[in-house]
Amino acid sequence: MAMKAVILSIGDEVLNGDIVDSNAAWLAERLSEMGVEVVCHETVGDCEEEAEEAIRRAAARAHIVVGTGGLGPTEDDLTRHAVARAADVPLELHEESVAHIEERFRRHGRTMPQRNRIQAMMPQGATVLANSQGTAPGFIVRCGAAHVAVMPGVPREMKAMFDDLLAPFIAALPIERRTVCVERLHLFGMPESLVNEKIRHLMARTANPLVGLRVSGGVISVKLAASAHTAAEASSLAQRGRDEAARILGDAVFGTGTDTLHSVVAALLERHGKTIAVAESCTGGLIGAFLTAVPGISSFFLEDCVTYSNEAKVGLLGVPREIIEKVGAVSEDVAAAMANGVRQRAGADIGLSTTGIAGPTGGSPDKPVGLVYVGLATAQDTAVSRLKFVGTREVIRDRAAKAALNIVRLHLQTIAPGDGWHPSA
Amino acid sequence: MAMKAVILSIGDEVLNGDIVDSNAAWLAERLSEMGVEVVCHETVGDCEEEAEEAIRRAAARAHIVVGTGGLGPTEDDLTRHAVARAADVPLELHEESVAHIEERFRRHGRTMPQRNRIQAMMPQGATVLANSQGTAPGFIVRCGAAHVAVMPGVPREMKAMFDDLLAPFIAALPIERRTVCVERLHLFGMPESLVNEKIRHLMARTANPLVGLRVSGGVISVKLAASAHTAAEASSLAQRGRDEAARILGDAVFGTGTDTLHSVVAALLERHGKTIAVAESCTGGLIGAFLTAVPGISSFFLEDCVTYSNEAKVGLLGVPREIIEKVGAVSEDVAAAMANGVRQRAGADIGLSTTGIAGPTGGSPDKPVGLVYVGLATAQDTAVSRLKFVGTREVIRDRAAKAALNIVRLHLQTIAPGDGWHPSA
Repeated sequence: MAMKAVILSIGDEVLNGDIVDSNAAWLAERLSEMGVEVVCHETVGDCEEEAEEAIRRAAARAHIVVGTGGLGPTEDDLTRHAVARAADVPLELHEESVAHIEERFRRHGRTMPQRNRIQAMMPQGATVLANSQGTAPGFIVRCGAAHVAVMPGVPREMKAMFDDLLAPFIAALPIERRTVCVERLHLFGMPESLVNEKIRHLMARTANPLVGLRVSGGVISVKLAASAHTAAEASSLAQRGRDEAARILGDAVFGTGTDTLHSVVAALLERHGKTIAVAESCTGGLIGAFLTAVPGISSFFLEDCVTYSNEAKVGLLGVPREIIEKVGAVSEDVAAAMANGVRQRAGADIGLSTTGIAGPTGGSPDKPVGLVYVGLATAQDTAVSRLKFVGTREVIRDRAAKAALNIVRLHLQTIAPGDGWHPSA
Repeated sequence: MAMKAVILSIGDEVLNGDIVDSNAAWLAERLSEMGVEVVCHETVGDCEEEAEEAIRRAAARAHIVVGTGGLGPTEDDLTRHAVARAADVPLELHEESVAHIEERFRRHGRTMPQRNRIQAMMPQGATVLANSQGTAPGFIVRCGAAHVAVMPGVPREMKAMFDDLLAPFIAALPIERRTVCVERLHLFGMPESLVNEKIRHLMARTANPLVGLRVSGGVISVKLAASAHTAAEASSLAQRGRDEAARILGDAVFGTGTDTLHSVVAALLERHGKTIAVAESCTGGLIGAFLTAVPGISSFFLEDCVTYSNEAKVGLLGVPREIIEKVGAVSEDVAAAMANGVRQRAGADIGLSTTGIAGPTGGSPDKPVGLVYVGLATAQDTAVSRLKFVGTREVIRDRAAKAALNIVRLHLQTIAPGDGWHPSA
């Protein structure tokens, strides 16, 4: 039987939905990847009795309870009291933590307010988890057979504390964990239902690796989590699964791990020594914002002209006014002229353009909301793709920008076929 | 005693952290605003016994249990079985729902696979919640004294189902709810600790309105939730609190409700009939992307030149090469020249520019990572702000773009003093 964990979030702001609980998901992912079975998450408010109850319940079901929140200096922050009661021990002042908190205030040129002393109170016998990112230390205390760990709710503080202190503590517990290895594949441009259909045979609930799909911002990610007795075995299982899925899904796969569409495009530009210039209408700067999120892109990304108005299309990009008047700004001809115009004015290898109708108004039967033309110009050739997106203005713009980046990716991959991401096998 | 609710999320993908549970926060916020007290959230995996247990536990603590997830057509989707067991009734086929599911497949040119029939199985005696956005219907069933409602986990389907069907059902229950009115203020450019200090006296745990702070992407939101016997009383309490907080916080307040920095800037441009052109270096298109998120901005937003390279700054904006060589691209002089250059080339009323060091590399003691100059040029005047941001590349770029928009907002508000958002009182 593998080690079991319960994740507990404490705080009115999470309970009432003022904050989306990203801590719980982050912890669940980390614990799962350590081979710990997460049994459930629970969220309770800033109420000492409710929290105590939840801690007792959790401690009865799991080897480790990982709690966050309620360690601040105000009277609402009752987590330490609740844990002490659940563990049936008194709170004690931890002098080293007082010194740490005072020191943090001093570094910001302030004196520690008296009320912050409460943050150094710990259940008797607790192991202190020092906070490298903020004032409130966390702690671990025994509660029956379980270990109850509590960390601050501020994600930055919590993540550092987990990785630096709590994860090693959990790893050292003499309780069996599964050995898990996770691989990820990312795709763009293939409908989720088709991805599902193509790899359904890999997705049985009992399969190893366990395969799951997640869609976020139009990008589909395939997660493959392999369990085995040794890390090497798990890793080899996960990689084999990943490669099999990648072979089936083909060109739609743009990367693995932490790759994004824009990081992959940036890497391809660099590998081929190609420069790009962009002209955006409906995407309004999103393509530029994506590409410039990559550090060091300035050698390959020359300029981006957001030509929202027709004047700008004519003035900046040299799109002939007659074309706009004849076929309209949202047209194949204008997309081609924009891509060529920006390529020439910047002296880039590749010119990329978008023009479309992001909505919510401005559509017509002929040119509906969601229609977007993407132009790709090189010295040899100009190609325009006619695309149709469904959704809100925000969704249409985001997907159009990603589709444009994907078109660049596919283009750069054809320069040296098989140059994109491909299975290691 | 007010109506109590438990929120239940069912699914391995939430339990294991593959998905951040935004449904729970959304439901918690909606229920709170309806005057329902949310007691706790719980997340369990795709396990019939665990789900049944969780439903029983929840039903014993609350008047209404709102569950999401596990209504798909696969063998992992066990929520309906778990609810039927907790309610101690058998599952029955709901013919109308079969017809609805078949119809949805037909509309997409497909035949309903046999396995989707399971989605029309309901606990006996359940009230069906039709799904206007997808295949799986939800349902409400009695479980002891509580009502247990279950909806699909897909946020779009869940939200429509809640607003259209479940919220009216809850509103009609003969159980007392608190009467709540929520107002929100949004601020930019004031540190959270200072906001906290300034309105701490309004933030007591027992205050009415109950005041809470939330920080997201550098924007601080003050939420004021007032409870009263009548809606009019609650609304007046919430507005009074909002106005008091706004008076204290002053110019940093840019809006209320669903306002964003860019929607407020767009509205001010429209009100004053002013046009804007943008030249971005370190923000790489983000300002353009923010502004063009507002429908109908094309009359006021003329163009945006993302001049990432020095060549582009010289070629597109006419920044004198000597200045770049003498003081560097990240400098007050270049920010001024960029803002003036883009204003003149576009013939805009306002020219806005950014140049800075987003990192992670490229900093120096003199010009550290996070240093950003924002230029604002009009026909009368050019002003440059020297700003310093801390964080990752992503954070620095985002905050710099928002700071630039905020500078435009403050500028436009000075055209007609008191023209920004101000208390209604």
